[in-house]
Amino acid sequence: MSEQELGITESKEHSPGEWYAEVVQKAEIADYAPMGGFIVTRPRGWALWEAMQDHLDGWFKETGVTNAYFPMFIPESYLEREKDIVEGFDPEVAWVTHGGHNELEERLAVRPTSESIIAPFMSQWTRSHRDLPLRLNQWCSVVRWEATETKPFFRTKEFCWQEGHTAHESEEEAWEETTTRLDQYQRLYEDVLAIPVLRGRKPEHDKFPGADTTTTVEALMPDGKSVQGATSHYLGTSFAEAFDITYVDESEEEQVAHTTSWGLSWRALGALIMTHSDDQGLVLPPTIAPTQVVIVPIWDEDTREEVLEYTEGIRDDLDEAGVRVDLDDRDERNPGFKFNEHELNGVPLRIEVGSYEVEDEEVTLVDRPDGERHEADRDDLVDAVETALDRISDKLYETAEENLEENVREAYEPSEILGTIGRYGGYVKTPWCGDEACETVIKDEIAAEIVMVPFDEDEDAIGDECAICEDDAEETAYFARSY
Amino acid sequence: MSEQELGITESKEHSPGEWYAEVVQKAEIADYAPMGGFIVTRPRGWALWEAMQDHLDGWFKETGVTNAYFPMFIPESYLEREKDIVEGFDPEVAWVTHGGHNELEERLAVRPTSESIIAPFMSQWTRSHRDLPLRLNQWCSVVRWEATETKPFFRTKEFCWQEGHTAHESEEEAWEETTTRLDQYQRLYEDVLAIPVLRGRKPEHDKFPGADTTTTVEALMPDGKSVQGATSHYLGTSFAEAFDITYVDESEEEQVAHTTSWGLSWRALGALIMTHSDDQGLVLPPTIAPTQVVIVPIWDEDTREEVLEYTEGIRDDLDEAGVRVDLDDRDERNPGFKFNEHELNGVPLRIEVGSYEVEDEEVTLVDRPDGERHEADRDDLVDAVETALDRISDKLYETAEENLEENVREAYEPSEILGTIGRYGGYVKTPWCGDEACETVIKDEIAAEIVMVPFDEDEDAIGDECAICEDDAEETAYFARSY
Repeated sequence: MSEQELGITESKEHSPGEWYAEVVQKAEIADYAPMGGFIVTRPRGWALWEAMQDHLDGWFKETGVTNAYFPMFIPESYLEREKDIVEGFDPEVAWVTHGGHNELEERLAVRPTSESIIAPFMSQWTRSHRDLPLRLNQWCSVVRWEATETKPFFRTKEFCWQEGHTAHESEEEAWEETTTRLDQYQRLYEDVLAIPVLRGRKPEHDKFPGADTTTTVEALMPDGKSVQGATSHYLGTSFAEAFDITYVDESEEEQVAHTTSWGLSWRALGALIMTHSDDQGLVLPPTIAPTQVVIVPIWDEDTREEVLEYTEGIRDDLDEAGVRVDLDDRDERNPGFKFNEHELNGVPLRIEVGSYEVEDEEVTLVDRPDGERHEADRDDLVDAVETALDRISDKLYETAEENLEENVREAYEPSEILGTIGRYGGYVKTPWCGDEACETVIKDEIAAEIVMVPFDEDEDAIGDECAICEDDAEETAYFARSY
Repeated sequence: MSEQELGITESKEHSPGEWYAEVVQKAEIADYAPMGGFIVTRPRGWALWEAMQDHLDGWFKETGVTNAYFPMFIPESYLEREKDIVEGFDPEVAWVTHGGHNELEERLAVRPTSESIIAPFMSQWTRSHRDLPLRLNQWCSVVRWEATETKPFFRTKEFCWQEGHTAHESEEEAWEETTTRLDQYQRLYEDVLAIPVLRGRKPEHDKFPGADTTTTVEALMPDGKSVQGATSHYLGTSFAEAFDITYVDESEEEQVAHTTSWGLSWRALGALIMTHSDDQGLVLPPTIAPTQVVIVPIWDEDTREEVLEYTEGIRDDLDEAGVRVDLDDRDERNPGFKFNEHELNGVPLRIEVGSYEVEDEEVTLVDRPDGERHEADRDDLVDAVETALDRISDKLYETAEENLEENVREAYEPSEILGTIGRYGGYVKTPWCGDEACETVIKDEIAAEIVMVPFDEDEDAIGDECAICEDDAEETAYFARSY
């Protein structure tokens, strides 16, 4: 890449959509595929998704989840079977109609989600209470034929995700499962991606079709829109009844299982990029960055050897301490070019070493998010780097947290809701009667909807009267524009 | 599962096909999906595939490979583009023709392999010699609409695999890449799966379409058929020319890259099951077994407490030593049932503990493959278990190696080739002129073909005259029936 191609030309503040697309492409996270709605995830992007998978998959396994793999195709008759309980994904399904030169007897859907192929097997595998809890998960890609503009990781016809499907003996256990997974999603966002989230449930009219309750973590993007970060559904017994997921309990009685499902997609990767990155390119928290530290030697012909030797020592010490470190000793690039390139690629911490540093037995540390500089003694190197990585994580989390805290506002009238969202974006908390019609009043005026209702209605209550219809308020709604 | 359902009823020796299907289902490795040709990989099976992925993916990354993800669909016009160099997968492609209620303008193939979608991006990303080597890999599933009977992991319309695609500056480097990956496949089979393999190349007429050379590792199954374990292709410059994968070298000259591709599918999982398992069920080498050791306490009411405490101590010691160990302390099952169940599931080593063992401060170790029993002092437990696990790995490898060594035979006449394969199966080595017509002579009589030609023709040469046509022999052909 030439020097001028490195620069991000769009502004995050003024044209966030174009800026996001530019960062994704120039930092080599993803490219557009020839078919609209599809992307190619490049190694830098896939490494981030793999890191997220590693964290989440580890937590899943620690808490009893087993991975499996179900076919990517679902016969049309199987999809039909769930129509009693759900509206179905028909309008969004990609259909396989031919195998080789022959037309298939029955069309096959490319999975839009896998309930309808997994549930029949859960039924088959669940006979006794000893078979429960049954916790299945798969990492795969799914396809939904939505006719929208492509936005890498946020809107793509094919997307990667994990989908968990579990069955339990009791409502209590299934609820515990639902919240365990929501906790793990929150942990991924907050501890790994440095993105604070709000927890709650979707309003009744916006639940996953067939679910008893849909819980969600919501993240606020810097442009004021909310991202549904992941959802975890308590499905009650409706899926188990439809798919005959029953078991014989300890008293030899047949019982219907309580089921859950829960998923997180690569949208989390989109949220990561959008939250922290800036007009110099990608910004990544050290927890997830494939390279946490890059060492850039600054040398001339005379000092090359001593600087190189010094930086190799630094690299080895950090490597030994478990820091993911690279030494950029390319001769054909100058330090300025290297600085720009590593900033674009989001390496959290840069170590600069010139002959002065070698002489003084020091190093210079530069934080990616804000360019803050620190000197450190060579002897304290590992400590200084670990402190710096923590500081960088904290900075990123705190900035995102401030953005979230400043952008939850209250409103008590339709005009106030509309005005606040129109002016500031973010979340508008408002007392709500629970009726979808009141959401529609707002939705018809502005592209905002109720993205979340807090779990604890009483604690979070801010008024007695629905801000829209003035009937009794039953809960507190969070309105926002969303991705 | 009830006691009688646990047993394998088919015989590996007399009905290997039925036996294999029964082991796969009863050990809960996989189930048949409702659509012919598709399977559901259950948690026990997926855990094995994940373990293989972990090994191989680690080696790939240590040797410069980066993972990426390309779309699962390929536009028909893209598939057409490679027709100049390859025969194409047309007759085996599943076609998506509709998205929701609308017919697509251009049909999309569900990827049968991804050269035609990956190569155009390799072209785009390769500009300078600094961009090389470019090493991409993806773990995904692919679909080939072959009209054959379903055999889990061996013959399925959808199968999981990894496909690596690389570009290099020189033939030498590309060749090194090709053999590096073949070495890693061999290492997976031999060191992880305890299956010895033969290395070589496919005959000219059976190369990957468009390839310069296809290299292969072949494993001999106990029923005398060969499994193509994995292939690694040196593609020469043909794909690079067709897809314009060129770069500017150090002298500013445009050059065509040399490319490779290489893949291993979940067929390796099928080979693992088929090689070691027996009429009691699954047998797994300790390297890959999710549970390496199961402790089965043998108690009555009076001794339950002391035996339990003793076995918990054993469990904790082994766990701390890094052994993957389970304590089967279920009260509702008797020891005999537990023995059968863990044998069915292929746990390599069983530790039996009754009150005599507690009294004598001993344990009894039982090897899964052959039921060999050893006493060990409680104090030497960890050492004894590690020795046992090594012994079990060696036993499995040695048995497979013996089978391989005993089943490579020489033949110098068509009737001898046919007779030997018909009678014994296995490999028949024979001098060969290199002409496909001579293979056809054999193929027309018996379902056997040339599965491999050794790399070193001279060293491996066994005669001067082609066994079939009596022209000059150019190489040594290994005939076998194959999966």
